[in-house]
Amino acid sequence: MIYADKKNHRPGRPSKERAGYSETREILLRAGMEVLTEKGFSSAGIDEILRRVGVPKGSFYHFFGSKESFGAELIGLYSAYFANKLDRFLLDITLPPLQRIRAFTDYARSGMAHHNYKRGCLAGNLGQEMGALPESFREQLKAVFQDWQSRFAACLEEAKEVGDISADADCQQLAATFWIGWEGAILRAKLEGSPYPLDLYADFFLSGLPR
Amino acid sequence: MIYADKKNHRPGRPSKERAGYSETREILLRAGMEVLTEKGFSSAGIDEILRRVGVPKGSFYHFFGSKESFGAELIGLYSAYFANKLDRFLLDITLPPLQRIRAFTDYARSGMAHHNYKRGCLAGNLGQEMGALPESFREQLKAVFQDWQSRFAACLEEAKEVGDISADADCQQLAATFWIGWEGAILRAKLEGSPYPLDLYADFFLSGLPR
Repeated sequence: MIYADKKNHRPGRPSKERAGYSETREILLRAGMEVLTEKGFSSAGIDEILRRVGVPKGSFYHFFGSKESFGAELIGLYSAYFANKLDRFLLDITLPPLQRIRAFTDYARSGMAHHNYKRGCLAGNLGQEMGALPESFREQLKAVFQDWQSRFAACLEEAKEVGDISADADCQQLAATFWIGWEGAILRAKLEGSPYPLDLYADFFLSGLPR
Repeated sequence: MIYADKKNHRPGRPSKERAGYSETREILLRAGMEVLTEKGFSSAGIDEILRRVGVPKGSFYHFFGSKESFGAELIGLYSAYFANKLDRFLLDITLPPLQRIRAFTDYARSGMAHHNYKRGCLAGNLGQEMGALPESFREQLKAVFQDWQSRFAACLEEAKEVGDISADADCQQLAATFWIGWEGAILRAKLEGSPYPLDLYADFFLSGLPR
């Protein structure tokens, strides 16, 4: 999930009309991130993104070439942003490993609440839409989940080392399972407009780990 | 999930041109079901559905009034079709209750394989897309999941009665958890083009039940 901050209206910030190349590009990426976490790619369309930021269509293609390369760049940015966020929790050695996972799910929960359960996970939205998206997104999205899973698996390995989960536990498989179900929990939290699906899934996952 | 059968080309079946009112209506619903399980609602658009079946746009509105009421009818049909399918497994008294759940997940697995992991769950697709869909779909989709969950909960109650899960188990909560994660598993199976996410999630769910 991403919870992009509201546009920062500092005094002295140049207006869109006067914004330079790199700033306009960044504004487009930020709007794209918002639209893709809320509505996904194919339904939202470039038009809505351009409407949100008041940039003409011609400029868009000037900056990104195609809707496909815009999407690819957004997936890359989101993946890196989110990997960083994950590390903040999963590498926090002040907490025991399983509590770090709980701290992450609690963080995701507040993030979704903050956006009234309207924003979900960009990777989950695009994964769901794959049937209507450029095939080139598939490998990229698979790699994103693989990356998040590896970070989770490393944390579960630490839980194994300290004896909080069974010595036989297959941490790669458990990490994969977490992300498989977690995307379902985000989907349902959006549909229900409630944190309940996130809580229920996080509780089941943590209590179902082999001891 | 729905795995609508291929159109049945019986000899003597009237051509689309000569098809009557109720037959054209049914052809549209069938195509809608296919498109919505593959691509979702807003991305697919009515245009693709009409292209698939060769029905002019004017007819479509004649039959359904609006895209929204077409969608509502499809959700209702899918929900009923699928509830029936669930009952076939969950009420099969020739199997112990937890094996019925496994039989259902195995069935879903073969269904997805049969369609090359291109078709997922209509309710999951639409749930993911809620941000871009008519608000009226929200309560309808929530009720669909509630219905499927109740059927699951009843099966889990039977597992409790025969002592296969703990007497303290909260079957409603466990059933809700199953569906939360299962929609994530379908999403990932589509993305990966593989049954692995379904297997992993079904195994984790069944082994994580309180004993």
